[in-house]
Amino acid sequence: MTDVNRQILLKKRPVGAPAADHFESGEGRIRSPGGGEVLLKNLYLSIDPAIRGWMRDAKSYLPPIAIGEPIRSGALSQIVESNAEGWPAGQIVQGIAAWESFSTVSASNLHGRVERIEGIPLHAMLSVLGGTGLTAYFGLLEVGRPEEGETVLVSAAAGGVGSVVGQIARIKNCRAVGLTGSDDKCAWLTDALGYEAAINYKTADLQIALKEVCPQGIDVFFDSVGGEILNTVLTRLNRGGRIALCGAISQLNAGERPPGPSNYLQLLVKSARMEGFTTLDFATRYDEARAVLANWIREGQLTYRDDIVDGLENAPAHLLRLFTGEHRGKLMVKLADPEV
Amino acid sequence: MTDVNRQILLKKRPVGAPAADHFESGEGRIRSPGGGEVLLKNLYLSIDPAIRGWMRDAKSYLPPIAIGEPIRSGALSQIVESNAEGWPAGQIVQGIAAWESFSTVSASNLHGRVERIEGIPLHAMLSVLGGTGLTAYFGLLEVGRPEEGETVLVSAAAGGVGSVVGQIARIKNCRAVGLTGSDDKCAWLTDALGYEAAINYKTADLQIALKEVCPQGIDVFFDSVGGEILNTVLTRLNRGGRIALCGAISQLNAGERPPGPSNYLQLLVKSARMEGFTTLDFATRYDEARAVLANWIREGQLTYRDDIVDGLENAPAHLLRLFTGEHRGKLMVKLADPEV
Repeated sequence: MTDVNRQILLKKRPVGAPAADHFESGEGRIRSPGGGEVLLKNLYLSIDPAIRGWMRDAKSYLPPIAIGEPIRSGALSQIVESNAEGWPAGQIVQGIAAWESFSTVSASNLHGRVERIEGIPLHAMLSVLGGTGLTAYFGLLEVGRPEEGETVLVSAAAGGVGSVVGQIARIKNCRAVGLTGSDDKCAWLTDALGYEAAINYKTADLQIALKEVCPQGIDVFFDSVGGEILNTVLTRLNRGGRIALCGAISQLNAGERPPGPSNYLQLLVKSARMEGFTTLDFATRYDEARAVLANWIREGQLTYRDDIVDGLENAPAHLLRLFTGEHRGKLMVKLADPEV
Repeated sequence: MTDVNRQILLKKRPVGAPAADHFESGEGRIRSPGGGEVLLKNLYLSIDPAIRGWMRDAKSYLPPIAIGEPIRSGALSQIVESNAEGWPAGQIVQGIAAWESFSTVSASNLHGRVERIEGIPLHAMLSVLGGTGLTAYFGLLEVGRPEEGETVLVSAAAGGVGSVVGQIARIKNCRAVGLTGSDDKCAWLTDALGYEAAINYKTADLQIALKEVCPQGIDVFFDSVGGEILNTVLTRLNRGGRIALCGAISQLNAGERPPGPSNYLQLLVKSARMEGFTTLDFATRYDEARAVLANWIREGQLTYRDDIVDGLENAPAHLLRLFTGEHRGKLMVKLADPEV
């Protein structure tokens, strides 16, 4: 290998929102895969709130990113060299890699082979047919479990995950209501994504708006935001309601641990459930979900928008956009095209 | 009817802990049952934390008790006069009545007929074979869903519900660990109820004690207490852990709304679930549960202790004991014996 391994490293841990100076460029060596490992050429990086969590020095389902290490990231990659059975060179895969041109990882980091689907661009395998779509699919259907005719409320509804959740809810004949941070995005939710209603949580009184827009109460809340939004929604939850906890982007940048939802006893009063999940909980069922999602896309029932920038050096700025609420759809960074 | 209907009425709503002056004695008239109603002679009153909730002026699964009304209460009663099909006079029933000698209620308030079981005293139909036992049974098995070998932590473990939860956990080959408020009660849990370990939460550092006593973490937390105990347990929850929210006795007397569990995002990190319930959610399955519980009692696997005082006038003081933590097992007030 003669290629240089360009990297973006964690320079220091953010307190509050991440900024450019928490990252630094670097060059690493390209390591040949050991037993059970593969060498990946990274094609697209997936820009997700989870990255902010991994930058924190706290135990999670994965260990924190160490200072001086490349930023861990979901990625769409091509296997360049393999020392792992069942993962041949040339195969395009989706898994956990890092912000670098090449990553050498255990095959256990790979979530699945990616087979191109005619008429669907490769990068969609990282969004609507990748982690984003799978998160929406399993979180809504397996954790939220909406029944026909129920009201499904989605926070961060214009984001990569939320924009898919609302559409799946509509496909399942539920009433989808979205929360997002601008009137423009509200219009996008109702005009393009089939949300029945949308609330600009930055300008509305959420308690009042929810009463108006969800007069039958809320059966399922798909929440990626947490904080005061979650606390308010708890008061409007129906009996037997379900909250699928997908993230808490409002709390990710908080320095001190923010207060918990003081209305959590609504769960008791309403025999309701609040449940966290990650797609990893459903790892054996990715193929099934991808097939269903791809079918919805082909039938024209499910649409998606990917917000892609070119070049590794743009990854930090793209991550920061997650927290300013300026984006629509799934954020990713393109590094390379696959070799045929 | 010539009997006087003695009553204990809600005089004013407590702020903080209830006290004697929130109640007053009264005499009501005995009303003949209208269509779909029954007239009950109350035999035993069930003294439960739920009563404190109903004294509050807040929406719940039942409306608040109005000022001047008798205190709503679970009860074991005998039907004196019936205007409801399927509920004949003479039948002993369990349901929602009030702190009074006689109650006229809709048959929808009745949770079930009570058939005496040989060798088991009638009052047990209000505790281990009544609401308390049913709460323990459904909350642990249907909400907590413990698997063999898992660690089940129970708060208020020496209370009416908790003392049954630990035993069911042990019967299901789980490791039951109890939290209670005195060394005496700790000893009772481990010596008499088959808890493998018990923690006096008033004297122990809970975070440290949980690490010692639950070295494999906590799979199921059956919680009737809430507050800081819940918040600490969240940090020791295992991946896929379940919290069955049965109540929040630590918060019932709080004037202002107490803070929520600031560690609730542990649910996300651990793909864990927190779920509220009431026995009413399982109303169609009471007979099944009673049969299983009675069988365990006959086999000597399940023991119970009822803490009974005589006389309606003692009901308020008995309720207050719920919050001082002085009791073991199920609290009830005996009003009368059934007529044969």
